[in-house]
Amino acid sequence: MQSLDEAKGVYIISVTPFTDAGALDLQSTDRLVDFYLESGVTGITVLGMMGEAPKLTADESRTFTRHVLRRIGERVPVVVGVSSPGFAAMGALAESVMGDGAAGVMVAPPGTVRTDTQILDYFSGVAETLGAIPWVLQDFPLATGVQIAPSVIASLIHAIPTCLMLKHEDWPGLNKITTLRQSMAKGDVRRISILVGNGGVFLPEELARGADGAMTGFAYPEMMVEVCRLFAAGASERASDLFDAYLPLARYEQQPGAGLAVRKHVLAKRGIIASSALRKPGKALADLEIGEVGRLIERQVRRLAEIG
Amino acid sequence: MQSLDEAKGVYIISVTPFTDAGALDLQSTDRLVDFYLESGVTGITVLGMMGEAPKLTADESRTFTRHVLRRIGERVPVVVGVSSPGFAAMGALAESVMGDGAAGVMVAPPGTVRTDTQILDYFSGVAETLGAIPWVLQDFPLATGVQIAPSVIASLIHAIPTCLMLKHEDWPGLNKITTLRQSMAKGDVRRISILVGNGGVFLPEELARGADGAMTGFAYPEMMVEVCRLFAAGASERASDLFDAYLPLARYEQQPGAGLAVRKHVLAKRGIIASSALRKPGKALADLEIGEVGRLIERQVRRLAEIG
Amino acid sequence: MQSLDEAKGVYIISVTPFTDAGALDLQSTDRLVDFYLESGVTGITVLGMMGEAPKLTADESRTFTRHVLRRIGERVPVVVGVSSPGFAAMGALAESVMGDGAAGVMVAPPGTVRTDTQILDYFSGVAETLGAIPWVLQDFPLATGVQIAPSVIASLIHAIPTCLMLKHEDWPGLNKITTLRQSMAKGDVRRISILVGNGGVFLPEELARGADGAMTGFAYPEMMVEVCRLFAAGASERASDLFDAYLPLARYEQQPGAGLAVRKHVLAKRGIIASSALRKPGKALADLEIGEVGRLIERQVRRLAEIG
Amino acid sequence: MQSLDEAKGVYIISVTPFTDAGALDLQSTDRLVDFYLESGVTGITVLGMMGEAPKLTADESRTFTRHVLRRIGERVPVVVGVSSPGFAAMGALAESVMGDGAAGVMVAPPGTVRTDTQILDYFSGVAETLGAIPWVLQDFPLATGVQIAPSVIASLIHAIPTCLMLKHEDWPGLNKITTLRQSMAKGDVRRISILVGNGGVFLPEELARGADGAMTGFAYPEMMVEVCRLFAAGASERASDLFDAYLPLARYEQQPGAGLAVRKHVLAKRGIIASSALRKPGKALADLEIGEVGRLIERQVRRLAEIG
Repeated sequence: MQSLDEAKGVYIISVTPFTDAGALDLQSTDRLVDFYLESGVTGITVLGMMGEAPKLTADESRTFTRHVLRRIGERVPVVVGVSSPGFAAMGALAESVMGDGAAGVMVAPPGTVRTDTQILDYFSGVAETLGAIPWVLQDFPLATGVQIAPSVIASLIHAIPTCLMLKHEDWPGLNKITTLRQSMAKGDVRRISILVGNGGVFLPEELARGADGAMTGFAYPEMMVEVCRLFAAGASERASDLFDAYLPLARYEQQPGAGLAVRKHVLAKRGIIASSALRKPGKALADLEIGEVGRLIERQVRRLAEIG
Repeated sequence: MQSLDEAKGVYIISVTPFTDAGALDLQSTDRLVDFYLESGVTGITVLGMMGEAPKLTADESRTFTRHVLRRIGERVPVVVGVSSPGFAAMGALAESVMGDGAAGVMVAPPGTVRTDTQILDYFSGVAETLGAIPWVLQDFPLATGVQIAPSVIASLIHAIPTCLMLKHEDWPGLNKITTLRQSMAKGDVRRISILVGNGGVFLPEELARGADGAMTGFAYPEMMVEVCRLFAAGASERASDLFDAYLPLARYEQQPGAGLAVRKHVLAKRGIIASSALRKPGKALADLEIGEVGRLIERQVRRLAEIG
Repeated sequence: MQSLDEAKGVYIISVTPFTDAGALDLQSTDRLVDFYLESGVTGITVLGMMGEAPKLTADESRTFTRHVLRRIGERVPVVVGVSSPGFAAMGALAESVMGDGAAGVMVAPPGTVRTDTQILDYFSGVAETLGAIPWVLQDFPLATGVQIAPSVIASLIHAIPTCLMLKHEDWPGLNKITTLRQSMAKGDVRRISILVGNGGVFLPEELARGADGAMTGFAYPEMMVEVCRLFAAGASERASDLFDAYLPLARYEQQPGAGLAVRKHVLAKRGIIASSALRKPGKALADLEIGEVGRLIERQVRRLAEIG
Repeated sequence: MQSLDEAKGVYIISVTPFTDAGALDLQSTDRLVDFYLESGVTGITVLGMMGEAPKLTADESRTFTRHVLRRIGERVPVVVGVSSPGFAAMGALAESVMGDGAAGVMVAPPGTVRTDTQILDYFSGVAETLGAIPWVLQDFPLATGVQIAPSVIASLIHAIPTCLMLKHEDWPGLNKITTLRQSMAKGDVRRISILVGNGGVFLPEELARGADGAMTGFAYPEMMVEVCRLFAAGASERASDLFDAYLPLARYEQQPGAGLAVRKHVLAKRGIIASSALRKPGKALADLEIGEVGRLIERQVRRLAEIG
């Protein structure tokens, strides 16, 4: 299987399907995994922030991950979010999922680390905890409150050989990609994979800046897969036409907090998961929101027909 | 002139033009004001966050505002941002600009107020400071860190008769508009104008929820003016077609921090202001960014031609 | 056993003893529990922030709590911190420890809740999760970033009959105690126990304002026990003499982050726990700090001898 | 006059006296300045955070500073806080007060800078703005939200020759002093003055770590002056005895937000300023607080008599 540092294309951030009563819905999980694979994703990430990871018990986290891993088998790599307030829980979950067949884990820093040195110290602790386990650095300041300078990412990559991928979702973040790619091109820092987040709303520009693809969620993963494919084939205008057709909905789904309800609503509407339920304190979409999403999808369908 | 609580359409958030050397550029200011008026705006707001207000001295703030007010005369109302760490400076600036002919002032809360009571107490101090001066409440949590619940806004409107407008830029914020509009419809709270911010990237949905228009900036204010006009005329699909054509650039201009450089770059490229210079610590666009903006504008022109 | 809403005296926030290698040290735990009981505490709280709760795995949390509960038996009530990013993990831990004999649990809000309504909604979810389990509200803005107004605490107490105690550690917070006690005296809100935190550095004033005692940690719990006893007996000057003798060290131990290392160092020096080790990312005291603590203890001993 | 980088002893952070009606009280200012000088301070800092600087208009800031400078003449150096949301206002105020005879200015970073690079970039802008004006770096994370690593302070000192002093009020911050002093001793970084803040509540330990004195406020500046003097004379135990006698009140005055009202109340009670009024949104002490302060002062007097 592809090593994480050579990852390209779309590592979809999987939602975690629940029943209306709030239990894990493993039947929907099977359909969801199949749907993602049919959409052409090159990897799947579970237990991310948008996978409602913090709302699961330790046991549920293991059960869900094991189920996904069994369904996927060897087809694509699976990355598992293991961010945790403490290293002990992080290490226990990481060891468990690697034993079940995960390709690696993903870690975002806690909001308490601030200075460059604190960030480096924190990830030094992560690396010690994870041992030989390959891992992905999640750089998402809007959610974590932690701003990681490009030079700090470079230092991290240099110091920690098991850091194989950057999930890049700084905002704005285009120049950060360029800075890192230039350092890698010059050989100042080892080349790792850079997959972008933020619901993909800057995907065309990010690919042009040197991103290898996306690791994020969107209710239409096939768009991100196709944009990556077209871009790699040199058809960037066609890629942007496709992207622009989905942008009004992507923008709507990108609303912090509310976005996951949109995503689950659309996935349910598309027949992939049985229920759009979020665990509390997540909230279902209001009727007006359902109407807005419906209208955006209608316009999207029309626009896709126009561009052929 | 229209009272602020009956405002509709687009109150453009004006940039503050500087020369390359960083001085106020009053010639460009004249062209800019004329351009905004020709674009069909129904009001102009100066000294907003995107007007680099905190980077001006107290004297420059007065000079720039007076210049704009003289150029505009009685044509449209001018709102002046007076947010300040202290009430004394806020009051002094407010009194000065009202004497020069402003229609009202705008205030955002400082990041130190948190609870509902602290917010109400703060604006009670604002009201005492401003006396009879009409003012606009700026609700922009991403920038201020202050989250104001709809019920708190309602209490504010009830308690302070001089609060005539909400500059709404919560994110997500659609349900907040609906909640407030419903309270106003039921007569629970006095009706005030709601103009939306966030670069207008949710303008169609916000108008449908009951917003009266926008008070924000975008390098193509004519789009926002036309979207508001079409929407008011019942042509919401046409409004959305137009909106969607500009959305890829609007999304790009909406990047926090970097966005103002994009806006000034485009305004300079359109020949409206002489220099795209920002005062420090603002930064000019990098070459790659200039290329990206250029490509987005080319695609925008093409798409506008398609929709006719 | 005393119900939590009638709690008085000192509920000590227990440290979690580790071996130098970082494993749970259950032998030291036995000595620690015995020491706390001999010091005269009226309750023990485990898995608090200063108990390094987030650094334990779910299994370790249960093991440690069960061990403490067995050692204590029926002697004093045990409260267990169950704050968690999600309700599922909170509920699972709470159910487990109550089954093992805990008297109640403690919850602090996550940093993401801000407005009064968000706070009330969050604790409504907590109450639904906990069912009939008695719980303590931890109000610690310096650590959580959440500011809870007295009126919101009153609403919480009114709405949720299982909320039996406030762990009060706002700073400044004296007027909050007074406001709440006055509401309780007038019968506007049910009387609950108020125990104070912040290492007890405002204990004399807080007792005078109506606090029932302290729920916090300090390497000399006997001081807090005796200050509470003297105060209840009307000997407030003598209580302050004692308090003042310990204040230089209490102030030193109250340094955020570094304080826990001080506390464990002193507990180890006193022969109560075998190792002063903190789990990472906690750090041991530097030599200069050990010297400073030693000097403060010497002066403390001298001053205690003076006051007799 | 002593250069700022050789400053020792106490640079008192001056309050700004107002009348009950909220106007600048220049008569009280004269008495206050005289009192500070008679207390033995070696410098005075005006327009600090505890000087309610953000509550003054630009004109008032100049008037107050000029008045203080005239009263003091050449007796001790005066430092003026010029922190501002923008460089233009900072530069204008700095130039004005230096023209009036100030010895230097003081700057704290805005909460928006986070990474090491952002901090260095920000102060590079400060240095460019200030030109040849000597300045003091205020490092106060609790108030600013900005954490500045010792290595970043060292880089700043190295890069900017006009940075002559550190107002150190990190918490905890003892090891930061030691790290910086060691770098200075080894010649890795130029020696500058380090004066400590935080109301002086760690003064004995900070002096032992290498601080040159304090730049902070306390209603009894004579205590800080004497502690510095005794410490310099090698009488550290006697210094600590004195410090400990004042610590209960210092702790009370150190409460964030509420502390300034305590300080002004005591200064008014001591007959130095006419009114304890704070400008809004500052609040006067409640009756219970006045009682608590009174009791603390009584105990302080008693304890001072005991130690002779």
